[in-house]
Amino acid sequence: MRASDLVVPWPTLTLATPAIEAARILADADLPGLIVVDDNGAPFAVLPGTQVLRLAVPSYCQDDPTLAQLVDEAAADVFMRELGGRTVRECLPPRPHELPVVSSQVTVFEIAALMARTRSPLVAVVDGGVLQGAVTLHGLLDRVVPQ
Amino acid sequence: MRASDLVVPWPTLTLATPAIEAARILADADLPGLIVVDDNGAPFAVLPGTQVLRLAVPSYCQDDPTLAQLVDEAAADVFMRELGGRTVRECLPPRPHELPVVSSQVTVFEIAALMARTRSPLVAVVDGGVLQGAVTLHGLLDRVVPQ
Repeated sequence: MRASDLVVPWPTLTLATPAIEAARILADADLPGLIVVDDNGAPFAVLPGTQVLRLAVPSYCQDDPTLAQLVDEAAADVFMRELGGRTVRECLPPRPHELPVVSSQVTVFEIAALMARTRSPLVAVVDGGVLQGAVTLHGLLDRVVPQ
Repeated sequence: MRASDLVVPWPTLTLATPAIEAARILADADLPGLIVVDDNGAPFAVLPGTQVLRLAVPSYCQDDPTLAQLVDEAAADVFMRELGGRTVRECLPPRPHELPVVSSQVTVFEIAALMARTRSPLVAVVDGGVLQGAVTLHGLLDRVVPQ
């Protein structure tokens, strides 16, 4: 079983997509994460849901629980204020050490190891530089976990 | 808006739960992750889906893509072999620096910062040492992202 057997179509963002739109796509479709493509349609970033959330959390709060505590209860307003008007490019997290991107020929086992290693519940599948879609953690589990 | 407004009941594992059962619960219910409780019912570990997957990937392959490539296509068999007979205790990943566990009084904003920081799409909610349930990334987004 290879990536080509598990890949499903996946919505993409560009670097110019408004960050609020990214959060909305994630929320509305209950997706485990999103793929950002460059101008050539190749994956530029694969963002697990928790890292899309990172777009909306002010950077001064991300690594300091004490500062996060100081933000009062009107949290939805804070989220909107942070996201308002910014693009995905402007609030991408630092590029990870290893991007969860594979060719359609890798085995399901390599995908599982990559997901575990990068902590990403989705992996982008590329052939000849062109995005084919994604393999999700649950799509993979459904095929490999015996019932 | 606080954790108590967002918490939902969540299935738990114990350290004695068979690892194969953990993978099955995650797959069947399409959950973003699982909570492992200790003998007193307090959270011992919060496992994002990708870390449940880690239970099933032999440790010698997890951090070495070259070794993962050597596993042939019969990947489902490898998963079963790895999981067979082992308990959650025997294949827990190393304990994280920070456990995604909060009291029911923390704000939605602190939860978001914690999810982003720990890369966990679920956070366990505890009151007086007793597990109340979990807040999920999507449960949170549904409440804070403006439509």
